[in-house]
Amino acid sequence: MKIIKAKNSKHDYPIIIGSNIIDNLPARLSKAKLSERVLVIIDSSVYKYYGKTIKKLFYSWAGKIHFLKIAAGERSKSLGSAGKIFNVLMGESFGRDTLIISIGGGTIGDVSGFVASTYMRGVQLVHIPTTLLASVDSSIGGKTAVNLSGAKNAVGTFYQPCMVYIDVNFLRSLPREEIVSGIGEIIKYGFISNYELYNYIYSNFNSLLELKFNVLKKIIVESVKLKSAVVSKDLFDTKGLRRILNFGHTFAHAFESYFHFRINHGKAVAAGIVAALYLSYRKKIINLNVLDELLRLPLMLKSKNFIADFDSREVIELMKMDKKSRKGELNFVLLKNIGEILIDVNATKSEIKYALDGTKEALV
Amino acid sequence: MKIIKAKNSKHDYPIIIGSNIIDNLPARLSKAKLSERVLVIIDSSVYKYYGKTIKKLFYSWAGKIHFLKIAAGERSKSLGSAGKIFNVLMGESFGRDTLIISIGGGTIGDVSGFVASTYMRGVQLVHIPTTLLASVDSSIGGKTAVNLSGAKNAVGTFYQPCMVYIDVNFLRSLPREEIVSGIGEIIKYGFISNYELYNYIYSNFNSLLELKFNVLKKIIVESVKLKSAVVSKDLFDTKGLRRILNFGHTFAHAFESYFHFRINHGKAVAAGIVAALYLSYRKKIINLNVLDELLRLPLMLKSKNFIADFDSREVIELMKMDKKSRKGELNFVLLKNIGEILIDVNATKSEIKYALDGTKEALV
Repeated sequence: MKIIKAKNSKHDYPIIIGSNIIDNLPARLSKAKLSERVLVIIDSSVYKYYGKTIKKLFYSWAGKIHFLKIAAGERSKSLGSAGKIFNVLMGESFGRDTLIISIGGGTIGDVSGFVASTYMRGVQLVHIPTTLLASVDSSIGGKTAVNLSGAKNAVGTFYQPCMVYIDVNFLRSLPREEIVSGIGEIIKYGFISNYELYNYIYSNFNSLLELKFNVLKKIIVESVKLKSAVVSKDLFDTKGLRRILNFGHTFAHAFESYFHFRINHGKAVAAGIVAALYLSYRKKIINLNVLDELLRLPLMLKSKNFIADFDSREVIELMKMDKKSRKGELNFVLLKNIGEILIDVNATKSEIKYALDGTKEALV
Repeated sequence: MKIIKAKNSKHDYPIIIGSNIIDNLPARLSKAKLSERVLVIIDSSVYKYYGKTIKKLFYSWAGKIHFLKIAAGERSKSLGSAGKIFNVLMGESFGRDTLIISIGGGTIGDVSGFVASTYMRGVQLVHIPTTLLASVDSSIGGKTAVNLSGAKNAVGTFYQPCMVYIDVNFLRSLPREEIVSGIGEIIKYGFISNYELYNYIYSNFNSLLELKFNVLKKIIVESVKLKSAVVSKDLFDTKGLRRILNFGHTFAHAFESYFHFRINHGKAVAAGIVAALYLSYRKKIINLNVLDELLRLPLMLKSKNFIADFDSREVIELMKMDKKSRKGELNFVLLKNIGEILIDVNATKSEIKYALDGTKEALV
């Protein structure tokens, strides 16, 4: 078991990572002196597998407990869905001394975090991510969100949890596609960190896909360390430091939009990284040899039905509509070397088109 | 014109107070380098009086501007109403570089603040309070809120504005009842500050009721100074320091509940202060002479149909349901002397009943 201390403007909190550690959760919550008046918001599929175990655990410890099952997916991340959770909280007489525990993937964590940050102007929050993507990315960093019709994450807050508890055992029951979904972000951490992590991911890629516990645990620990270190220096995303986490993402978001979110997030990010590498080459930040070498890691996902054909010009138009683009200007996070990231790099339409055409050639 | 510098965890911001200063607003917003992409959320009654002037002002300055009229009142402070504002923001393509300006009383400010704190995880916010209560109380301190059915302020955030702009000229058109509504909080500031402010309020009480500009301005300036100083030491209401601002309020909230919110807030607070003084006497914190002397200020509102008859036992039951009560225990903010406030003072049922019965005798 590994404990990573994460920082917040108000308090430090632990991110606990291990396998088969769910039984120790009550002891951990007690040790952290968290409230025993608990609303558990749980992914209904996770509940099917683990509901009985989890209920038993919480009944032995909590003073007051209520379970709320929610279907995973973007639909549950709405203002209306948050409203329903607020009504459950009020209806069950939960007060300021409430602890909300989210058990599920990114959508459950995001809406639970939004509710926790605003109910009574903020109650305690613990995340128990049960997907690879939530474990390495969305449960870390304190961004909460709900969607407005047609606009992902348009409403939200910055709100750090009191604890993140990652039991890799939960990942055992994940469908293959869900694993791939998290691997895009892991590849990204390889690129923005250092050669050690990059090489480790590269050499253990197949073990990762097969969910070998030791590999999985090491990679989750390193990813969480990296993300929480970046976040702690820029809690409210105002200083630009967090932008390195967007490596590959300007392209990835446009791909997701282009395919109406029917593309796996991990593949979209991996394809976005491929495009960012081509753009780094086109802008003469890296040479052809380096490009070829660096493409090898994201291309390891190639066999898995990577990405369908796309129209480069249309993808560029979608990028311009991204909420991160300012006054129609397109800025990118590019790479000079493993761990050497350039932010806010401007590119022309023809440079971007070159990168997208290269990506198509490499992937489609 | 007077500028008070208020503090925030991220930045300082100015609270600007004057009479007939609305024409300088664009210059002030420019000087503060605030965004020129503006959504104005304005009380529909205020719009009737001042809409033309305000529109002209903003059109001369803003790059993008949209006006949204909202009826004042608790009904507009709902999650659904926030949802409608979010949809306007999305529909009008407002991005992260949005400035929301609220023009109105407490309810408009609260819901505007909630929207500003959560849209795109936080956009710029300026408050222009147009009621006395909003000027001295709700626009200062960064508490935003919407109601859930039957629960006032059950959802909200802590979010400081970039500027508060108080033109006392707006108060000229207020109905008498609205003035009285703010005077309860002003009396409270007299008690929790020092003899100088207390005596000034006492000697100028009638000029205040008649909205004499100089008196009004001085009292608003002193109230804002006091509240923002207290708030800056306890931004997230976690240290207990803000609790002195609740002097009289445990009783006041119970009175408001008892009368189904049909009692003027100012009178409820003044009656709450009377009850808190009686309780301070019953707990031997002040003697009878001091009690008699201190009752004079809140009793100055006596002629104005103060408060209807009530059942003390029922009021006590309502207090127990207050979200501030912990485990059914009732704690009060009491007074030893002007500016000497005791927080978290426990009282028995019979002591509270004594205080309520005394209040009834003095007021009803």
